[in-house]
Amino acid sequence: ARPRVGYFYSGKKNADLFGETLRKLKVKDYKSVPIVITEKNSVYDAIVTMFMEDVGSLIVVRDQMLQGIVSRKDLLKVAIGGGDIHQIPVNLAMTRVPHVVTVEPDEALYEAAVKMVHHEVDSLPVVRPDAEGGGMEVVGRVSKTTIARAFVELGQYREV
Amino acid sequence: ARPRVGYFYSGKKNADLFGETLRKLKVKDYKSVPIVITEKNSVYDAIVTMFMEDVGSLIVVRDQMLQGIVSRKDLLKVAIGGGDIHQIPVNLAMTRVPHVVTVEPDEALYEAAVKMVHHEVDSLPVVRPDAEGGGMEVVGRVSKTTIARAFVELGQYREV
Repeated sequence: ARPRVGYFYSGKKNADLFGETLRKLKVKDYKSVPIVITEKNSVYDAIVTMFMEDVGSLIVVRDQMLQGIVSRKDLLKVAIGGGDIHQIPVNLAMTRVPHVVTVEPDEALYEAAVKMVHHEVDSLPVVRPDAEGGGMEVVGRVSKTTIARAFVELGQYREV
Repeated sequence: ARPRVGYFYSGKKNADLFGETLRKLKVKDYKSVPIVITEKNSVYDAIVTMFMEDVGSLIVVRDQMLQGIVSRKDLLKVAIGGGDIHQIPVNLAMTRVPHVVTVEPDEALYEAAVKMVHHEVDSLPVVRPDAEGGGMEVVGRVSKTTIARAFVELGQYREV
């Protein structure tokens, strides 16, 4: 909490520098393309899309606006439930807004990791609040895979 | 690559210290308890265990020795395949040794993250090679959740 005037060696321990460096990473620099599906699609469609795109969750949208999120776990639950997965719409299996945990592009990747660990979810839609409609526009996704990739990238820094 | 004699400020950039700090974390200090199932269990048993334990994959063992690993994705594939999941044994759905990617307790957590990103898997059994039998004893697991938790922990370091 002291004022920073350029870069200088302040006597901080490695761990302090570490935390500071890590908390500077932004969601917008690490997010990936959102894999979306509409709420009218069936659970079967969702499972097929999930395998084709090889992701662990799909973001459910209407006109690019966030409606919900559906995970492998949600779909597995329905798949063993005995119903006809071709007939059941994905919106019966998904977690629905406002219960979806989201993150915005300017938030720290650290905050995204905190949210995933705290809420025990594997991915978050990256959203931008829509001033007019009051909804949330989906602009990306981050997942625990995103965090693992950032972790690897940071671990690759070596003395040069 | 210069010799280190105790701790001193060596003019390294933050990023160097960062990478160094990160690569020092060991698997043994972050691993969690392995959630296991035997190969004689059915796919249905595996799905139930997965929900009860709330994990994304189960390690398949015989007498604590690694036989394979089965993920939500593997089980979802079988569940929509149309067979009787009560009759299909889990060893028909699992990835089998020697195709399972593993990590040892003394390896760096960084290496575990590299393996998960590179092989596109969400978790790794932590194993100890068994000198006598030539197999691998399962002593824990690490997952992308483990990496996310470590990421959060490291981001919490603050100047004191």
